[in-house]
Amino acid sequence: MTEVRGYAARDAQSPLAPFSFTRRSPGPHDIEIEILYCGICHSDLHQARNDWRNSLYPMVPGHEIVGRVTSVGEHVKKLKAGDFAAVGCMVDSCRHCSACDDDLEQYCEHGATWTYNSKERNSDALTFGGYSEKIVVEERFVAKVPPHLDLKATAPLLCAGITTWSPLRHWKVGPGQKVGVIGLGGLGHMGIKFAKALGAHVVMITTSPGKAKDAKKLGADEVLLSRDAAAMAAQAASFDFLLNTVPVPHDLNPYLALLKRDRTMVLVGVLTELEPPVQGGALIGGRKSVAGSGIGGMKETQEMLDFCGEHNIVADIEVVPIQAVNEAYERLLKNDVKYRFVIDIESLRKEAA
Amino acid sequence: MTEVRGYAARDAQSPLAPFSFTRRSPGPHDIEIEILYCGICHSDLHQARNDWRNSLYPMVPGHEIVGRVTSVGEHVKKLKAGDFAAVGCMVDSCRHCSACDDDLEQYCEHGATWTYNSKERNSDALTFGGYSEKIVVEERFVAKVPPHLDLKATAPLLCAGITTWSPLRHWKVGPGQKVGVIGLGGLGHMGIKFAKALGAHVVMITTSPGKAKDAKKLGADEVLLSRDAAAMAAQAASFDFLLNTVPVPHDLNPYLALLKRDRTMVLVGVLTELEPPVQGGALIGGRKSVAGSGIGGMKETQEMLDFCGEHNIVADIEVVPIQAVNEAYERLLKNDVKYRFVIDIESLRKEAA
Repeated sequence: MTEVRGYAARDAQSPLAPFSFTRRSPGPHDIEIEILYCGICHSDLHQARNDWRNSLYPMVPGHEIVGRVTSVGEHVKKLKAGDFAAVGCMVDSCRHCSACDDDLEQYCEHGATWTYNSKERNSDALTFGGYSEKIVVEERFVAKVPPHLDLKATAPLLCAGITTWSPLRHWKVGPGQKVGVIGLGGLGHMGIKFAKALGAHVVMITTSPGKAKDAKKLGADEVLLSRDAAAMAAQAASFDFLLNTVPVPHDLNPYLALLKRDRTMVLVGVLTELEPPVQGGALIGGRKSVAGSGIGGMKETQEMLDFCGEHNIVADIEVVPIQAVNEAYERLLKNDVKYRFVIDIESLRKEAA
Repeated sequence: MTEVRGYAARDAQSPLAPFSFTRRSPGPHDIEIEILYCGICHSDLHQARNDWRNSLYPMVPGHEIVGRVTSVGEHVKKLKAGDFAAVGCMVDSCRHCSACDDDLEQYCEHGATWTYNSKERNSDALTFGGYSEKIVVEERFVAKVPPHLDLKATAPLLCAGITTWSPLRHWKVGPGQKVGVIGLGGLGHMGIKFAKALGAHVVMITTSPGKAKDAKKLGADEVLLSRDAAAMAAQAASFDFLLNTVPVPHDLNPYLALLKRDRTMVLVGVLTELEPPVQGGALIGGRKSVAGSGIGGMKETQEMLDFCGEHNIVADIEVVPIQAVNEAYERLLKNDVKYRFVIDIESLRKEAA
């Protein structure tokens, strides 16, 4: 066991504060990583504050983790000391169900073990995330970071990246297709970059005229204002795919009208109820689908990182010291970030030193 | 032009009553059919009463039509005088859009011409449906009825049949799959028969314990009571496909929990809003889909009829004279029919004679 320092929420009300805990010593299949950067995901905030009523305390959030391998167990083949490594939303799964067999550990039929706010496999010990100096994870759940990527801007790929990458690949987005990305935040900005790099004609769909310029800088070919009924009508039945990243309940029906026959809108942002209900007729008239997609498996996480390495894709970020995490949460609530906060974990080491 | 007798709604309030109108003389590509039987679809009632606020009067309902060919135009190849023929929900479409090219005329991008409550292509003349003696339809929109099928019980295949057949085929339902049919009415009873004949393990999902016996008679292997939370939990994540035939707004979320990962629930019954909203998390946790499907194209309508001919599949019906159509509507509102009313059009000829 090693003593590790981090920042934790002690309960739903208190701000995050310094916290010490222990990590296991690396076993034969484990990789020990010195954490260098950790992205701040919206879900960190929701879980720290128990918004989803499933929080376990003390909680060390963080599942967009990149760092340097410090040691590996004797059976580890994927990485060696000194390599750059990444850990995302999961650190374990059952490994024998059909989802795990299909490299989709996030849908593990016995429940994946999440990087934080979860319990270690077959144990009551809590998992602790990336707002900390160090993490020890089994090889399967560690990805290799292509060497020349900007490391701090790579961190958000582990959640915001894979969450948008996975559905774009699963629904086979590519050249010749018109793809809409709904909502421009942490997820949406990665959705635009990926859809564009995959060869699609990308339309950023937003309620905010102010986001048009940035959307184009990120790679969008067009911007469609969803409150402009005439503009929406002009693009009716013209989209091959819609990636809906909006994180709050909203009306899906106007977006369904944008889809061509036999096409799908995938929800990745909203975990709660939609508002108002979907209209059966909006699906029936054109055999359309509304689907959901959750993060991605470890195999596709590695594929995404490799693709990012080839295309030099990273997130647009703002780096903050860990001492500013509570302030960053407040700014996140106001969407005041372009487009992801990343904690420089060096600030934690300096604080302790 | 020929004078034709039928029954029509004159407005949203009045009962259906005798009505005379004219049909065109058959053109070179037309087929003239002496109507023998016409099924009563729920949508007949909704449209006669203007429940969907799009009714055109006078309205002669009926789109589950079977009869005998009396004459054909010179270019007609599919059928000849004396053959048994069927007409469903459409009598025309643009014939040059991608949907028409894909034999999915029901999704015609310029709008299909419906058998009634619609306007003739490029005209303001209303279309009149199957509650009448005779109909004239272009060859593409007429199907051939396999000769040995019970004709009166074949009529409902043209709407209730194709509406359930098309999604079962599109989503590739077959042997080794567990398929749920939600709701046991006109659509649901056909869904059970088709899913069973296609080789699936069929579970009838209903709110009514009283329907269990009938469901098994129709071919269901199991009955699942959707209000039995323990029974629903026991079958969580075990279904390969769900065909939802419920015609009224209802909560989809409990059914989504029944689906395996990457599977779909298809709505065919409810055109209005669902209630309450779908939960994003219910889709995201397993990459599930809610889709819609509307009737079927003419090619798949013929494939369905041929399949029914091979497997001797018809609807379970109750035959009524046309003079009882208003009473049948009242019983339909109470679900008091197993499972489809069919009008014997001979009763119309006798009335006029």
